[in-house]
Amino acid sequence: MPQTWAIAGVDLHLDLTGTRRRAALESALREAVSSGRLAPDTRLPSTRALAVDLGLARNTVAEAYSQLVAEGWLSAEVGAGTRVAPRATAQSSPSAASEESAARVRYDLRPGSPDLSSFPRSRWSAAVRRALAVAPDEALGYSDPRGLPQLRRELAGYLARARGVRTHADQLIVCSGFGQALWLICQALCGRGARRLAVEQYLPQRTYATARASGLALTVLAVDGHGGDVGQLGSSDAVLLTPAHQFPFGVSLAAERRAHVAQWAQDTGGLVIEDDYDGEFRYDRHPLGALQALAPQRTVYVGTASKTLAPGLRLGWLAAPADLIDPVLSIKAIADRNLNAVEQLTLAEFIRSGEYDRHVRRCRLMYRRRRDRLVAALGAVRPAVKTSGIAAGLHALVQLPAGHCEDEVVALAAQRGLAIEGLRAYAHRAASPFPALVVGYGTPPEHAFNRAVERLCEVLGSLGASGR
Amino acid sequence: MPQTWAIAGVDLHLDLTGTRRRAALESALREAVSSGRLAPDTRLPSTRALAVDLGLARNTVAEAYSQLVAEGWLSAEVGAGTRVAPRATAQSSPSAASEESAARVRYDLRPGSPDLSSFPRSRWSAAVRRALAVAPDEALGYSDPRGLPQLRRELAGYLARARGVRTHADQLIVCSGFGQALWLICQALCGRGARRLAVEQYLPQRTYATARASGLALTVLAVDGHGGDVGQLGSSDAVLLTPAHQFPFGVSLAAERRAHVAQWAQDTGGLVIEDDYDGEFRYDRHPLGALQALAPQRTVYVGTASKTLAPGLRLGWLAAPADLIDPVLSIKAIADRNLNAVEQLTLAEFIRSGEYDRHVRRCRLMYRRRRDRLVAALGAVRPAVKTSGIAAGLHALVQLPAGHCEDEVVALAAQRGLAIEGLRAYAHRAASPFPALVVGYGTPPEHAFNRAVERLCEVLGSLGASGR
Repeated sequence: MPQTWAIAGVDLHLDLTGTRRRAALESALREAVSSGRLAPDTRLPSTRALAVDLGLARNTVAEAYSQLVAEGWLSAEVGAGTRVAPRATAQSSPSAASEESAARVRYDLRPGSPDLSSFPRSRWSAAVRRALAVAPDEALGYSDPRGLPQLRRELAGYLARARGVRTHADQLIVCSGFGQALWLICQALCGRGARRLAVEQYLPQRTYATARASGLALTVLAVDGHGGDVGQLGSSDAVLLTPAHQFPFGVSLAAERRAHVAQWAQDTGGLVIEDDYDGEFRYDRHPLGALQALAPQRTVYVGTASKTLAPGLRLGWLAAPADLIDPVLSIKAIADRNLNAVEQLTLAEFIRSGEYDRHVRRCRLMYRRRRDRLVAALGAVRPAVKTSGIAAGLHALVQLPAGHCEDEVVALAAQRGLAIEGLRAYAHRAASPFPALVVGYGTPPEHAFNRAVERLCEVLGSLGASGR
Repeated sequence: MPQTWAIAGVDLHLDLTGTRRRAALESALREAVSSGRLAPDTRLPSTRALAVDLGLARNTVAEAYSQLVAEGWLSAEVGAGTRVAPRATAQSSPSAASEESAARVRYDLRPGSPDLSSFPRSRWSAAVRRALAVAPDEALGYSDPRGLPQLRRELAGYLARARGVRTHADQLIVCSGFGQALWLICQALCGRGARRLAVEQYLPQRTYATARASGLALTVLAVDGHGGDVGQLGSSDAVLLTPAHQFPFGVSLAAERRAHVAQWAQDTGGLVIEDDYDGEFRYDRHPLGALQALAPQRTVYVGTASKTLAPGLRLGWLAAPADLIDPVLSIKAIADRNLNAVEQLTLAEFIRSGEYDRHVRRCRLMYRRRRDRLVAALGAVRPAVKTSGIAAGLHALVQLPAGHCEDEVVALAAQRGLAIEGLRAYAHRAASPFPALVVGYGTPPEHAFNRAVERLCEVLGSLGASGR
């Protein structure tokens, strides 16, 4: 009856040595339990299944189980089968302390995350089912390192339609997010002799680290109300920009700077890296398409589902000029080969069915309302406080009243259970930022948003009156 | 009515310049369609939704749509809304030719893939739904670079139980498969000064490439009936082995060699990299646990769901000694940060619910039957042909009759629509392999397996009689 053992119960590795089979089995099981290799409450295979597996008489296995139950290693209950007995010595986890400190953060207005509670779980599950029902078997194997063609086709249509990107499926590479995209691009740039990357003076520190780890020297561009100052590109081989919504400064790149950087790329052969991390979320009626459309042969456009759906999906994409595709793929082939097929198929189905657009529009409305509530609340408590970068995205820049520093405000907020970040955390050392908060109004779940804003207002309201 | 436009229809980026709004809209739409940015059959937003988006009167949008329908750019049908009109010029895809050549392969016995048609699609979809229904929101954000704790806990239990691995959740790192694991380990080894990696003389060429790309020099170990010859380790800093089932030679590492390599690691501080790519599939009753258990502080164990479920899931794991965790994570943090959360949660649920074990056992039975049929069929057509490596895994080594070379047999098979590979494709240049086929009997779908084996037998039967 191999059929029976092959489909019943759990897999259990036991090394039986010696000729006395029952003693060997008892000893192997005892060792497995006492060493912790079999965790408390693990269900053991039925005596019949294990007997067939090991080529023993069923009785031999039943006797061994009985002996170990008698010794207290196993427990047997009618209907529940035989299990490893619970033990008193629970292993302590080194992350227990950090979980505890995380629990003290009751409200979170740090930037960089969308509202995770708004992830459309049941719609996503349904799309998984639909996508898996029709996918060809090949999609589940080792596939095109650029990503599944199903997804690249949908993305090419979506990016053209919604973001004005000029590309097609063959020039798209699916990746795990902006982080991987930047790493791949930096590696490819170095591979063709690039030395210097220009970056904006405010960025996540992680981005500086990735660029530096590739061996690229950095040129730091000042950021003002018109975005990164692309007049300072100098002899850079490439420039990384956030044209739709500077992170974290919040401004968009002005039209004349867009034209300037496109011309620079054409003239010098330089590469523009466009990080369109939250381009889907614009709230006012001035449309702002991708910079990539101005110089599609000299720009690599990078987008992500991290803000529109969830960072945990690890889905991003880059639309690259033809001459960058092979260098990027040859690096990606060694580092991670392919991305998960089921998520790719599901995102393709999500876009195809219109669910993606509906979700983005639903979120855009929610975030716009949050932005309005935030701006109104801050205006009520401190009319002189300047809030900027609010035309798009998931965060706003809130300038602190004169005479107050970020550390003071962050500490005051922490006392009230509110996690918040200062602008300085995103500044390159060449920058001398003014004291401000980067308020991520996308982060809290909807039910906690108003109270998070109240906490923030309390903190700002409690500061000295100089800013009022 | 922002609520309406925010949840209805598709997202559409349009850049309106100038003051004549209707003309600007027409021109923007015309440009989007004629440039191919909007693909044929793309559904446009309703006039009402677009009007609200753009801050125009609904009539203005309706008139622009009508004009473009009249010009043939758009088509409007009652009930189907307004769509981009189909065009005659279909873009030709550069991959059309390769798809055609792939279609000519009717039977595939190349190694390295499980039967993709046996992926438990509906069970997996159901597990996605269950996993997403209970997952905390944080799991969908940027999470622990080691992988989600839910999955690491389940994996630790599973690996201990089914493969005899000595580890716990904190020493596991979830990765995208063996390829990424090896790349991470090689980078970490180089980072601590390692120079030389020992590998077996038969391996996928990709593995050599990954090791070399990291800058490690290779020591090549001969492979015989007892596995890799670990007596030749010399001054290597690390050794990569496939102890359960040498790929592609098919033998397992003999007990005395296991003991030897564990001792070598203890004595020299060398690292053992255990590639347990198909350890779940053993067919005879000799259990063979992980080598890692002999030297858990000097071995990094690497497993994968690529053979048990599907390569397209991109899920693998490594159980590493404590001193290797941080170096690996610091490299992984830059290259890809996290893995997909939904797949991780789903695999955790699959293991927790017992579905994973049931699936493995079901597949093991199927593959064992295939192996039996293959061996019987080959024995019937050419009794003198030696078939080895069949105690485990998804492939067998079939030695060719004297006087025949691999290229001849591979070409004969290709004429019959059968794709097959020779041993030489896996040999390091230091090896001088005998002519043999590496027959991947896991690859075909169940319905095509018997005919694939018939084709193979026809090819082998048609060779000269010297081997009979």
